[in-house]
Amino acid sequence: MDKVQPRILPGFMELLPEDQIAFNKMRDTIREVYESFGFLPQDTPVIELSDVLLAKAGGETEKQIYRFMKGDNDLSLRFDLTVPLARYVAQHFGELTFPFKRYQINKVYRGERPQKGRFREFYQADIDCIGVDELDLIYDAEMPAVIYNVFKKLDFGAFTIRINNRKVLNGFFSELGYSESIADILRIIDKIEKIGADSVKEELAELGVSASAAEKILSFIGITGSNDEKIAALKACGVENELFLEGVDELEKVIGFMRDFGVEENYFAIDLSIARGLDYYTGTVYETMLNDHPSMGSVCSGGRYDNLTEYYTNKKLPGIGISIGLTRLFYQLKEEGLIKSGEASLAKVLIVPMNPAHMSSALNAARLVREAGKYCEVYYQDKGMKPKMKYANKLGIPYVAIIGDDEAASGSVMLKNMESGEQELVKAEDLAGKLL
Amino acid sequence: MDKVQPRILPGFMELLPEDQIAFNKMRDTIREVYESFGFLPQDTPVIELSDVLLAKAGGETEKQIYRFMKGDNDLSLRFDLTVPLARYVAQHFGELTFPFKRYQINKVYRGERPQKGRFREFYQADIDCIGVDELDLIYDAEMPAVIYNVFKKLDFGAFTIRINNRKVLNGFFSELGYSESIADILRIIDKIEKIGADSVKEELAELGVSASAAEKILSFIGITGSNDEKIAALKACGVENELFLEGVDELEKVIGFMRDFGVEENYFAIDLSIARGLDYYTGTVYETMLNDHPSMGSVCSGGRYDNLTEYYTNKKLPGIGISIGLTRLFYQLKEEGLIKSGEASLAKVLIVPMNPAHMSSALNAARLVREAGKYCEVYYQDKGMKPKMKYANKLGIPYVAIIGDDEAASGSVMLKNMESGEQELVKAEDLAGKLL
Repeated sequence: MDKVQPRILPGFMELLPEDQIAFNKMRDTIREVYESFGFLPQDTPVIELSDVLLAKAGGETEKQIYRFMKGDNDLSLRFDLTVPLARYVAQHFGELTFPFKRYQINKVYRGERPQKGRFREFYQADIDCIGVDELDLIYDAEMPAVIYNVFKKLDFGAFTIRINNRKVLNGFFSELGYSESIADILRIIDKIEKIGADSVKEELAELGVSASAAEKILSFIGITGSNDEKIAALKACGVENELFLEGVDELEKVIGFMRDFGVEENYFAIDLSIARGLDYYTGTVYETMLNDHPSMGSVCSGGRYDNLTEYYTNKKLPGIGISIGLTRLFYQLKEEGLIKSGEASLAKVLIVPMNPAHMSSALNAARLVREAGKYCEVYYQDKGMKPKMKYANKLGIPYVAIIGDDEAASGSVMLKNMESGEQELVKAEDLAGKLL
Repeated sequence: MDKVQPRILPGFMELLPEDQIAFNKMRDTIREVYESFGFLPQDTPVIELSDVLLAKAGGETEKQIYRFMKGDNDLSLRFDLTVPLARYVAQHFGELTFPFKRYQINKVYRGERPQKGRFREFYQADIDCIGVDELDLIYDAEMPAVIYNVFKKLDFGAFTIRINNRKVLNGFFSELGYSESIADILRIIDKIEKIGADSVKEELAELGVSASAAEKILSFIGITGSNDEKIAALKACGVENELFLEGVDELEKVIGFMRDFGVEENYFAIDLSIARGLDYYTGTVYETMLNDHPSMGSVCSGGRYDNLTEYYTNKKLPGIGISIGLTRLFYQLKEEGLIKSGEASLAKVLIVPMNPAHMSSALNAARLVREAGKYCEVYYQDKGMKPKMKYANKLGIPYVAIIGDDEAASGSVMLKNMESGEQELVKAEDLAGKLL
């Protein structure tokens, strides 16, 4: 028979067990912190109706969609978790309790040209909170508080949650007389990390921004000092635009609440250069950098939007949300050597019967270990001791418990620590307690 | 602006938070038991290349596939987790440790006509174990041992794991002289629960099976008694076909191992009527019934197959696997009233500041609760006490901790048990310990 070559499409991350265990640990940690803050689980379909999913989309996004017909249905795979959230909230409005806090950690699809570190199928880990008509400013501080706890627990080293407010930016540019080109100016400023100040000035000039205004813009976004000093500088900078003042006030309150949430001062920084490309952010915006790995870019971004569901309903539902691009983050952390995926098994101990006559004792010992809440495996194949030990070694299982005639007769196991090589005779019912 | 009606395609299960919490509990329990037996996590792409995914498929399966072009790529959404497993094992053969034990709990896609209880997107929760050239018979007992532990923990009442062996069936029909029509006869027998013995006889007659043979077949599959009595009856029934005898021997050994695994006798039963429709099962086969809900049919099925990866490689990789159709099971359990989804929140306590001046104390109390490993929420909106209590009630949060002037001054909360109505003053640092 002709064989088909087993393979997958480029741009899809498929992991070996060792990496999958490390990935799942990361995903579980994020889920645990999200849930500990009261965010509710959500799991929407991967396939949505195209007219619903693409109510807003256009341009680049639309080109990347996996879209197809099935029977009479025009279908698309979701390209993010925000549009499905908007659809869900509009559809189930009467059945939800507001403010509605939900998380979703699931895969999304974008048919991009595959390139290093870019994926066509990838996990996003999103939290959002949606209010009706209004949503208190304290939620703007809860988002970075959750992210602070997530990255502390993930333990990938020092990180900085950068925070800004679009009202500060929009107000400032209005005052300069460029309120018409805010979106374009912000798009250029957004690139400052990547292309540098000189190139930003050039692009601003091409846009028609005067040289003196460009200077003001750059010195504005370059305001330095502690968080409190930045707030003081903003208050003292002479801009009297109302939106600007509102934004500064919000920023001050949000960082105050962040301190109340217990976010340590050296883990967040006001950064006036952050605009976030997306059109719909209207207030607080965030990015998160790993301090020792700036080339990774922002590993977690988000912000406040005025109206999530405008394509589906006339209700006004403001919200705030933040997203971790989990697949990309995992890939980058691997590249930077920050993922140590040493474990190729979830079992703490491999129980090894010397020969089939000891299988019953081995299965009994395994049952006792599991009842004590520890994970374990039994080696079932009737083979010599060498392949049995090799199996434990290859999977990195830390202990092996051998059962021969003497052990079976006395209800014990010979427990071997695979790292130190130490051995001791242990009663089967005490085995679980010996596994560190 | 014209609004798009927010909706999803029929046949897709989307849950409200209350049900999602119950669903996730079920999924987490299954994962925990799978992992406790040493099964490794797997997460393959939803989208596969059509020529790879459909190497074997045909007929009904092929018609149901979500298949589409993207650029030059002919793509399909996976319709089960077994074909991706075969592809994965063949593709990563050199990087895996065998016997390879993996689980995958993920969504699969079938474009069926939507009907009650049938889904186009649904979760499967699979475990499989793959050997190279051979795989010990004890794995045939591990599968039902895992399933026994899963359904014990899920706690949906009494259940029976029905077990049979295809060699017993195949040998028996060869002896009767119907080895050519085994597949057809098995397909008819497989329906005995649904259509009854008389209709089975009619269909067998249409197939050309003599009336006396049909009687023998029905009395054979109707052998009664305890598991040991059934084995004894099979040994004594006079069939001398070699495959038959091998099957009986396997069945006897497997139920012996199941007892060693601690599977209680009243949770499994040899059932000679079970054939499993799929062509590729070659040895042990299983179905699982909830005793008090026979109309649900089998909630967990599987068996042994000789060669998983024959479409991708010349290696001989026998395996055994079992699958829980999670979405359908959840739907059925809801219908039967076996899912009690009372919790609409994961938070144990809602911390309520009387007014914004107490927010800092509330956030501090929340931090202490989370640090103690309990989930909690703070009510952030500046509203009256009534909407605050209503929020806790609607979400079914069991405790509310109120902070006013006195509590804030003394670092305490007024803890209210929402069920009993009892109140007590509790130090913020002792709050977590008070939550049952």
